[in-house]
Amino acid sequence: MHAPQTIPSDLADPAAAVLARLRTKSPRVHCITNTVAQNFTANVLLAAGAVPSMTVAPEEIGEFVARADALLVNLGTFDRERRAATEIAITRAGESGRPWVLDPVFVDRSAPRTAFAKTLAAKRPAVVRLNGAEFASLFDSGYEDDGLRRIASAISAVVALTGATDRLTDGARFLRIANGDPLMSRVTAMGCAGAALVAACLAVEPDRLMATAAALLAFAVAGEVAALRARGPGSFAVEIIDALHGLDRETLRARAKVT
Amino acid sequence: MHAPQTIPSDLADPAAAVLARLRTKSPRVHCITNTVAQNFTANVLLAAGAVPSMTVAPEEIGEFVARADALLVNLGTFDRERRAATEIAITRAGESGRPWVLDPVFVDRSAPRTAFAKTLAAKRPAVVRLNGAEFASLFDSGYEDDGLRRIASAISAVVALTGATDRLTDGARFLRIANGDPLMSRVTAMGCAGAALVAACLAVEPDRLMATAAALLAFAVAGEVAALRARGPGSFAVEIIDALHGLDRETLRARAKVT
Amino acid sequence: MHAPQTIPSDLADPAAAVLARLRTKSPRVHCITNTVAQNFTANVLLAAGAVPSMTVAPEEIGEFVARADALLVNLGTFDRERRAATEIAITRAGESGRPWVLDPVFVDRSAPRTAFAKTLAAKRPAVVRLNGAEFASLFDSGYEDDGLRRIASAISAVVALTGATDRLTDGARFLRIANGDPLMSRVTAMGCAGAALVAACLAVEPDRLMATAAALLAFAVAGEVAALRARGPGSFAVEIIDALHGLDRETLRARAKVT
Repeated sequence: MHAPQTIPSDLADPAAAVLARLRTKSPRVHCITNTVAQNFTANVLLAAGAVPSMTVAPEEIGEFVARADALLVNLGTFDRERRAATEIAITRAGESGRPWVLDPVFVDRSAPRTAFAKTLAAKRPAVVRLNGAEFASLFDSGYEDDGLRRIASAISAVVALTGATDRLTDGARFLRIANGDPLMSRVTAMGCAGAALVAACLAVEPDRLMATAAALLAFAVAGEVAALRARGPGSFAVEIIDALHGLDRETLRARAKVT
Repeated sequence: MHAPQTIPSDLADPAAAVLARLRTKSPRVHCITNTVAQNFTANVLLAAGAVPSMTVAPEEIGEFVARADALLVNLGTFDRERRAATEIAITRAGESGRPWVLDPVFVDRSAPRTAFAKTLAAKRPAVVRLNGAEFASLFDSGYEDDGLRRIASAISAVVALTGATDRLTDGARFLRIANGDPLMSRVTAMGCAGAALVAACLAVEPDRLMATAAALLAFAVAGEVAALRARGPGSFAVEIIDALHGLDRETLRARAKVT
Repeated sequence: MHAPQTIPSDLADPAAAVLARLRTKSPRVHCITNTVAQNFTANVLLAAGAVPSMTVAPEEIGEFVARADALLVNLGTFDRERRAATEIAITRAGESGRPWVLDPVFVDRSAPRTAFAKTLAAKRPAVVRLNGAEFASLFDSGYEDDGLRRIASAISAVVALTGATDRLTDGARFLRIANGDPLMSRVTAMGCAGAALVAACLAVEPDRLMATAAALLAFAVAGEVAALRARGPGSFAVEIIDALHGLDRETLRARAKVT
């Protein structure tokens, strides 16, 4: 049992250990994600050591999920076939005991999306990753620290509210990660890919809060390294994949700003 | 009212002003576009300062368009759900007074696509962007300057015929932009992304011909800057996003070839 | 008739000749491929000199295929519309005498996918490109050299089993290509794009084994050149497109490891 029951004040070493397990175990991560984010998400997962699959055909998604180690459900595209596939995938993940991550993209922008996301949030995701507007819309709650804790306890999931500072809680423990770079908000699918990385880490780390923290810290630090080399958002999107691929414990130690 | 009613012989300064407004106002641009182009298009919009959304679900696209500042309709993928969503989106854009751009990709390649595009061209787009073969097929007309003027007047839209030299007209005024680089034709989705940038500029510039010219000039000049740094089409696709993100008035002034 | 009936021991020169024809003839390649791979595949084809199209709408795919020079059928996404379009496209390719490539991605992962791929393999593809697990699942056969030869003869197609060493056979002749770089397996859609390049080469080279070998050799050598410049999988994906665009006979001669 390598899962700590408390989060150490220095997250760099355990996050590096999670990354190392990703690289040696190469977990399979099935991603239901929007067509804008698919390619970048697959490349982020591969750079970190995981193996992505992305079919959304209802006829076969159950088999893919049953053979995967974790599942990502991102609502970005929201077409009919994808919604049908989502229900099947979540049921199968539950039957197989596989952790799954809910990323309710743009849930604040349309009523049908809000209604669908609410049914999904009740199906025991391991982690819900979202921003403040999405949180408010999905949970009818303010997104101050107490609101996050309350919802995390109510749905028995880790809530990860991402932004300039990421705030993570499983209801009991609470973490802040103040890493990252403003260029991350000028490249599409950064949040979607970060959520996929959370799913990958859940496949190799049973402490769900630690898995979530490791993924978000690693991605944010990779963003800082990328920003040092990039001339703009185009090269930044390339450099963050290289940086994630080469990320080591020393860089995590030097850069992690976790409280 | 910052929209000039005539196009100045020097387009660089007003184009730079449009770009500056993009960066400060961050307009929302909803894009119905093909799955090949989605990621690159989103990144071009983000690099320019706009905020893209891309759902095509008929149940919710009306809400997305109502909250957006402009709409792009690109026919590249042409699946059934996308066609249904397109009708809803255009109707909603009309009701909300939002400008929309028609990009009838490959309309010359199949009869069902031609027929569908003709119904869309009659629904009062602000701008139609296309190449010569697509123009001929969509409007049953030659694409010499007079043909462009006549069609622009007939459909009350700006016609932007892109190629080695872009030709733009609203029926009365006529512009030629001779910028760009041959590598732009060796990377997929360049034209699609350029049309999305036109939609973004329409959100911050009421003179539709000026908005169209600003977008196409900026993108073509970014292409020239990118070509100076690129070693081939792979790095060119990265560099053009960096170049667009960093594009300034001085570069536009030095490079604009507009008559 | 420029097609050799035997494969020369030195494949570099004939492969360079095939690449040169791609650049001058600019064949149209229609690709039914998964949404993860579409953008990268289109850019690989453009970098090599071909012109991609990617619609999957059943109403129009027949017209696109009839006007194309080759067809790629990749099962990656496997949604309903795409399956319907696939049947139409293959029928039309047969009627027009156009070569087509079958890339049965993940056929080993789900029973519906296996069943569908088996029906396609019986429809006379020119080339089937796949990995060992996919071969075993699709043909219920071991994938040693004899198994490849036997299946290639049985379905009258070139079988190209890709991996650290690619093995190609038309049933009579047999080739091994030992080029490439491990980073090719850390970027998504590399295999998909390689299969698209095979389709492009089939459009300009009637000897199907030679066309397949030229495409796989060129892509693998481009990967080696890219690896010299890349810092990780992000920059590798960019560099391989630049390298393919600039690939010349001298580089092929210096690097080809074909037996």
